[in-house]
Amino acid sequence: MSTRGVLTVISGFSGAGKGTVMKALMNKYPDYKLSISATTRSPRNGEQDGKDYFFLTKDKFESMIEDDGFIEWAKYVDNYYGTPREFVESNLSQGKDIILEIEMQGALIIKEKFPDALLLFITPPDFDELVKRLVGRGTEDNATINKRIARCNEEADVVAKYDYLVINDTVDACVERINEIISNEHFKPKYNEELIKQFSLKSSNFSI
Amino acid sequence: MSTRGVLTVISGFSGAGKGTVMKALMNKYPDYKLSISATTRSPRNGEQDGKDYFFLTKDKFESMIEDDGFIEWAKYVDNYYGTPREFVESNLSQGKDIILEIEMQGALIIKEKFPDALLLFITPPDFDELVKRLVGRGTEDNATINKRIARCNEEADVVAKYDYLVINDTVDACVERINEIISNEHFKPKYNEELIKQFSLKSSNFSI
Repeated sequence: MSTRGVLTVISGFSGAGKGTVMKALMNKYPDYKLSISATTRSPRNGEQDGKDYFFLTKDKFESMIEDDGFIEWAKYVDNYYGTPREFVESNLSQGKDIILEIEMQGALIIKEKFPDALLLFITPPDFDELVKRLVGRGTEDNATINKRIARCNEEADVVAKYDYLVINDTVDACVERINEIISNEHFKPKYNEELIKQFSLKSSNFSI
Repeated sequence: MSTRGVLTVISGFSGAGKGTVMKALMNKYPDYKLSISATTRSPRNGEQDGKDYFFLTKDKFESMIEDDGFIEWAKYVDNYYGTPREFVESNLSQGKDIILEIEMQGALIIKEKFPDALLLFITPPDFDELVKRLVGRGTEDNATINKRIARCNEEADVVAKYDYLVINDTVDACVERINEIISNEHFKPKYNEELIKQFSLKSSNFSI
């Protein structure tokens, strides 16, 4: 029915379990096309080029910026991060549903450029659970946890700009919810203009 | 989580199978509260007061109009039709999800007065199927069918104002789709203001 794909942008509080949800989502629904970000930072242990990120040189990244090759990009400290345009636009026009996992700042830029983008924000069921998950990881010191919570505070003030909050109570339910929301998106009138046109044209001057 | 209920308004092309879908929806999901319209027309064979309509006298209806007792009302030929306000507002504030089955004209009035209302429009999978269903009923003469199709033509031009088109291919799938769309609605930020506030307040000046 729908000819265009849906562009879904997924963000979430640090500690919301976004990584686990994304992995489970892509495992269960492999038809979604996951957009891979580009960066100039060095690969960390185990990270693969073209899977975790496209690892680019600074020169290459900057020439892509000049060629309008990113739908959004930003510089954090000394490194660039961006979403390559070609992958997103070619898949959308082929009717494929694309998922981007991206920080709030980039998500809001994408919403400006692609008003039809569907913005989902993953949250734990409540704040105490967020703290519990951050502490429970055991991988970060208190200063880092405090920094993540401070960021959560900034994000909470802007999260109403997202289309949906997806509450990550259990991973399975969260994955199902995300899949349902994206599926339903296809039933908005803007994705069914051909069908509406058909009813309009064929009913015009109809006589049995 | 959500404190307010969702107000869903369902319309559809004549011949889309709306009646069957509504019946199956309410059977399968009896927690939805179905708003009953009021009218001054006489009950038809088998229609029950308080189930199919609230059958009111003209005096009663007009005094309710004066008391702002309807969230929308209209006069067709010599009869009034309207949606009683009290049922809708009291159930919404109790967090109940309400469903209104109503014509396009009334639906758009409700969307103006309740911008959070969720507008669903049921369509057959394509125009030929619509004609097939109207003819297949065998209950209407050709003039009536032509009138219904002419109305479909008017509605097709405005249907993009609805939030979702729900395609009635099979009744079961259509019922599931409606239920999913309403369920997902509860995950919009506007229905989760308490949760957002909690994250904002508890993360403010947090230190571990």
